Amino acid sequence: FIYLRSMIRVILIGAGNVAVHLARAMKRSDEINLVQRYNRSTNGNEYFDPEIPFVTNPANIKEADVYVISVKDDAIAAVSDQLPETKGLVVHTSGSMPMNVLKTPSRKGVFYPLQSFSKDKEIDFSQIPLCLEAEFTSDMPLLKKLADQLTPKVYEINSLQREKLHIAAVFANNFSNHMFYQAQEICRKYEIDFSVLKPLIRETAAKIATMDPKEAQTGPARRNDEKVLSKHINDLEGIQKEIYRILTKSIKETYYGKKL
Amino acid sequence: FIYLRSMIRVILIGAGNVAVHLARAMKRSDEINLVQRYNRSTNGNEYFDPEIPFVTNPANIKEADVYVISVKDDAIAAVSDQLPETKGLVVHTSGSMPMNVLKTPSRKGVFYPLQSFSKDKEIDFSQIPLCLEAEFTSDMPLLKKLADQLTPKVYEINSLQREKLHIAAVFANNFSNHMFYQAQEICRKYEIDFSVLKPLIRETAAKIATMDPKEAQTGPARRNDEKVLSKHINDLEGIQKEIYRILTKSIKETYYGKKL
Repeated sequence: FIYLRSMIRVILIGAGNVAVHLARAMKRSDEINLVQRYNRSTNGNEYFDPEIPFVTNPANIKEADVYVISVKDDAIAAVSDQLPETKGLVVHTSGSMPMNVLKTPSRKGVFYPLQSFSKDKEIDFSQIPLCLEAEFTSDMPLLKKLADQLTPKVYEINSLQREKLHIAAVFANNFSNHMFYQAQEICRKYEIDFSVLKPLIRETAAKIATMDPKEAQTGPARRNDEKVLSKHINDLEGIQKEIYRILTKSIKETYYGKKL
Repeated sequence: FIYLRSMIRVILIGAGNVAVHLARAMKRSDEINLVQRYNRSTNGNEYFDPEIPFVTNPANIKEADVYVISVKDDAIAAVSDQLPETKGLVVHTSGSMPMNVLKTPSRKGVFYPLQSFSKDKEIDFSQIPLCLEAEFTSDMPLLKKLADQLTPKVYEINSLQREKLHIAAVFANNFSNHMFYQAQEICRKYEIDFSVLKPLIRETAAKIATMDPKEAQTGPARRNDEKVLSKHINDLEGIQKEIYRILTKSIKETYYGKKL
């Protein structure tokens, strides 16, 4: 009984991609008791283990140590407002909403897994960073214990940092992917098999594990190779030309200062 | 004796990173006879297997099936001009020079490994794409046989395509790395551990193996989420603001057309 009492009792709210993967990872842990799932409809229930008790009426939500609200950003406020009074900690899983979007008299926090999920793809949760925030520092040990069950990559990130992290992720993820797309467009235009670039893309990203991106930079802008740069710019058209210009300018500023 | 005659006799010219890794990979093959190395100085010889016969006088260069010139771009013309008359095929390994930079009456070609090399890092050559070009189509089987010994990733790429491939690689490799750098700068400014973004970066690049970058695109510009986009743009300054604007414009054009 002592063993059971020391498990963290969790209630999971929502049925989206993040909720699906959190439920799977939590079920695997001996330290987490996934007491209940709540969602206002049964939509998406097929993605969850049917052994987890499920309710659609907020009045039937039980007592727990942590309530994890994993719903769309614009539903977090309303859903948190519906929760029964609890001594538990109420957290959301959003990367783009501040902690205070939670409407509850209970203690608040954030439990944000920084990764893109899709329901059908199996995820190794141990590779996913979890970003934690707590309204009261005294709640951090509980949140950390919960996070440690799912991944070794646990970070304390406050609401301001999470906001900035989102912008950083747009550069690191969305914009780099768009660079891959533009490369593919050039290949398509000249009937070059895009696969020829895939090992280089893999290597570029793999380097980051052991090397600072500032050190890892190569290419004509890094070398300040004007001959190649102006040849490339003359060769490109439209938005590709604009992108090439601005990123070349940015790389030059990074390595040679603004006065080049 | 028949066995030996069917091996491809190769002479390797130059002592840079590419030459070092080509020599190592060629030595491992039973179908390649690395007859000789030539370089005008002994610089860099410590990186090569001393069993490979080495000469510094071009007059001592022997007869072979393929002469692989792996020297700096602006030395290719002069080095190829020094070669003794040969019935062999003369190729360079440069991604940015046309085949015709070779100054030789012999048959010409290109043997370009598309990857960045460093001398000290062990390379798995089977992961590296080789881009081939031959002046005469009748030489392609020989070049392909040679390439097949080193990697399964063999592509026919003509001089025009290779020029465009270089521009595509600037987007896919140099520019995406600069996006990682800008993300790191944002993290640094707000005291966020950049490691938190590394799994996402790895995942972004890994996706390309199985998914078209056009399909893989996510983020506020892809969703046309004006609220988030203008928040981010207001938040950024200087060159980061310019980059965010132009790449957002480019992503919107890609998915919603120019008339959005």
